[in-house]
Amino acid sequence: MESSNLRAVLVKALRKSIPLHCILSDAEDTRPYECDSLSTYKQLPLVVVLPEDEMQILAILKVCRELQVPIVPRGAGTGLSGGATPIENGLVLSTAKLNKILEVNAYARSARVQPGVRNLAISDAAISFGLYYAPDPSSQLACSIGGNLAENAGGVHCLKYGLTVHNVLRARVVTIDGDILELGSEALDAPGLDLLGLFIGSEGMLGIVTEITVKLIPKPQTAQVIVASFSDVEQAGNAVAQVIAQGIIPSGLEMMDQTSVRMVEPFVHAGYDVNAAAILLCEADGNTEEVADEISRMCAVLEKAGASSLKLSMNEAERTKLWSGRKNAFPAAGRMSPDYYCVDGTIPRKHLAQVLRSITEMERQYAMICANVFHAGDGNLHPLILFDANDPGAFEKAEAFGAEILALCVALGGTITGEHGVGIEKLNSMCLQFNAAELACFMAVKEAFDPHKLLNPTKGIPSLNRCAEFGRMHVQNGRLNFPELPRF
Amino acid sequence: MESSNLRAVLVKALRKSIPLHCILSDAEDTRPYECDSLSTYKQLPLVVVLPEDEMQILAILKVCRELQVPIVPRGAGTGLSGGATPIENGLVLSTAKLNKILEVNAYARSARVQPGVRNLAISDAAISFGLYYAPDPSSQLACSIGGNLAENAGGVHCLKYGLTVHNVLRARVVTIDGDILELGSEALDAPGLDLLGLFIGSEGMLGIVTEITVKLIPKPQTAQVIVASFSDVEQAGNAVAQVIAQGIIPSGLEMMDQTSVRMVEPFVHAGYDVNAAAILLCEADGNTEEVADEISRMCAVLEKAGASSLKLSMNEAERTKLWSGRKNAFPAAGRMSPDYYCVDGTIPRKHLAQVLRSITEMERQYAMICANVFHAGDGNLHPLILFDANDPGAFEKAEAFGAEILALCVALGGTITGEHGVGIEKLNSMCLQFNAAELACFMAVKEAFDPHKLLNPTKGIPSLNRCAEFGRMHVQNGRLNFPELPRF
Repeated sequence: MESSNLRAVLVKALRKSIPLHCILSDAEDTRPYECDSLSTYKQLPLVVVLPEDEMQILAILKVCRELQVPIVPRGAGTGLSGGATPIENGLVLSTAKLNKILEVNAYARSARVQPGVRNLAISDAAISFGLYYAPDPSSQLACSIGGNLAENAGGVHCLKYGLTVHNVLRARVVTIDGDILELGSEALDAPGLDLLGLFIGSEGMLGIVTEITVKLIPKPQTAQVIVASFSDVEQAGNAVAQVIAQGIIPSGLEMMDQTSVRMVEPFVHAGYDVNAAAILLCEADGNTEEVADEISRMCAVLEKAGASSLKLSMNEAERTKLWSGRKNAFPAAGRMSPDYYCVDGTIPRKHLAQVLRSITEMERQYAMICANVFHAGDGNLHPLILFDANDPGAFEKAEAFGAEILALCVALGGTITGEHGVGIEKLNSMCLQFNAAELACFMAVKEAFDPHKLLNPTKGIPSLNRCAEFGRMHVQNGRLNFPELPRF
Repeated sequence: MESSNLRAVLVKALRKSIPLHCILSDAEDTRPYECDSLSTYKQLPLVVVLPEDEMQILAILKVCRELQVPIVPRGAGTGLSGGATPIENGLVLSTAKLNKILEVNAYARSARVQPGVRNLAISDAAISFGLYYAPDPSSQLACSIGGNLAENAGGVHCLKYGLTVHNVLRARVVTIDGDILELGSEALDAPGLDLLGLFIGSEGMLGIVTEITVKLIPKPQTAQVIVASFSDVEQAGNAVAQVIAQGIIPSGLEMMDQTSVRMVEPFVHAGYDVNAAAILLCEADGNTEEVADEISRMCAVLEKAGASSLKLSMNEAERTKLWSGRKNAFPAAGRMSPDYYCVDGTIPRKHLAQVLRSITEMERQYAMICANVFHAGDGNLHPLILFDANDPGAFEKAEAFGAEILALCVALGGTITGEHGVGIEKLNSMCLQFNAAELACFMAVKEAFDPHKLLNPTKGIPSLNRCAEFGRMHVQNGRLNFPELPRF
């Protein structure tokens, strides 16, 4: 069927159960949905639907099942790996209208919310009880909890407080066949297979989440941050490992290289040392005694590791200021360069310095600048590759650069995503990370939930054909000529 | 094929790749494997194999696939839900010989071990680095890490440190089709679907684990425990909720009722108040300041909640003594009664007192004694139903009593297992917990991994037929006449 015909048929079928104001089908209306925050990939969806309740979601899935129309679920569109990039002749199911906080239970320390609720709105609702929701992706002002669940989002504090998967207790899910599943429990364990764990991070490929119960935790009494300067990147990398080896779990342990410090400092005036080769931000939170104890132990470790200077926040305003540089690294990149490409991979902490050296080498090779901002404590890298999308081929080059960093992560025993997901962005990198049997397993699990292959197909899991193709390309093409990668 | 013929064919096929000393087939040799710690269910396996490496496991799976022989994986046999109960004409695959600690990495705070390694042996190997493996099921001296993974085992400290699923980083798995999967990563997140989370707690239904990387954490500097007596069960239950509501996460928060206190005290002389209606054990661990702060806050909460007396450990010997009563509750039950049946369910903490009242009512109804030992902090109940297996029908009555407690857990918004798994024990209770769509989903995921239905079949997931049967029985039979259960 032609697109315009299919659109008409689809809208007509949807209209039987969905109010008109919840269906967008004119290009003018669907344009804002043509991409998520991986904005180099664009595709106009056939139709966008914004259901107002679970019944409407069931109706949408039924229509799509009958007409065999693929569905792309979408939260706030802040994802960085293209999980919400529309599919040609597909429908986008936006959770934007499902934005109610249904319950905040201070007693059980949990909140029950709809998937479209913004991450920060949960903490706002819990603040009067002295509670908050811990995972804090940089987009937390805008991103939705449903999207967080789909991508297993993290944030600066996840070293101590965990990713989304560690902070979600239950989810209510609608399957493509119209069944309703209640996954997880308010207890630590749940009987049966851990389908909640499976759903978290499944990038919309297994079902549509209609209700989420998250864990709330008490606001720490106080927090303090150290900014440590290092004249040598190697020393900074080793300092991270030494803090962790001391048995300290900082509430944040971030690393910025000189490029990123010099990028943010003129913009934010956080007071960072622009002559340092790298800086570390080390935060402790808890009660006063705990924080004082951890801070003094961290200062000792950092000094011993060769820090050239240490700066401590003496009050909440100073703490906020010292964090502002790190928190504004992405906007600063946007200010310094017309475009930037944010890479997301992980490595064992001990290889931090080695990765920075290799990235410097790649900068020369690709003739591109890369600013490095790392969640160093958990070995999660966010290199920001600067480029100008108006230069022909520049994005492709940046993408190849990013892919090479991810290949290096795999070679060092790390992974190709720390918190941004696979989406469409990292399908080729998945071929490096996993063998054919592992990918076949992913696909079999997906098909157990979605035998019709309608839920966000072509995302998350590369086909074995694609991997074979990628393998050939990677041998022929000099640019993608990664070293032989050992299996971890 | 007859059993004896099938056994001969199976042994002959196994002998091609497995050394003779690793195969047990005489009834005399296989007898010790006829049950796990749910010892009321017994079945002689056709053959027991104790492979020495992964290659041998692959060979065993290949033979079983070709001959269509079901496989029951077995760790140390300490499981309480019958996960390792043999299947008629099935093979038992014991991991007992896979007992090597391959690596302790103090730097990465992890240990890589084979599945047959005992839980406590990991901490023993890590102690010289000041590290340990946190989950501590009561069987930790004997139970294996592979079995812990299969059942998602917990323990007294899991309120603060999590269950097995929170403490395993990676697993290497062999599938029934002979593929090798590497699941999880040393980073917080792993790309692709979270198959590691799915495997943990899957009771041997999805594959055979051949290598496990666990998280190690620093030994806390110190720990202190409070034993609080209450003259009223309701007050004790509410005190638990109030401790948690204060933002304290104790390293242990256990509750024992009068029956269990009076059961253990003459045996262990822990110094418990035998006149209390219930006692709580509340522990804090960490550095000296943290512990002092938490203990004083907990004392204040407990006093305010109506504790009739508080006893504090003043040194490590006293702490061990105060815990000894709780830790010996199961042996004490074994001393007081020829047999006991340990139930495992969870409820929201706020219902603790109500559940104790209902169990008292059921004791009258069933004319059986039940001693209650709860991981109260996380709402995990372990009622111990005392009976004498020599009395005809006594076990069946105890089982029905246990099932009724689990039905109550579901009715109160809790679950039918906290840490012991489903196995064969709780197949009927699964029908109360989940609807048909949810059970079908479990089965579809199982079949994605095990299309031949050879891996621990008939465990973990009830068939829809069985649930229909159970539903009918539950209406007809007075004893199982549970109240209409609301869906949570």
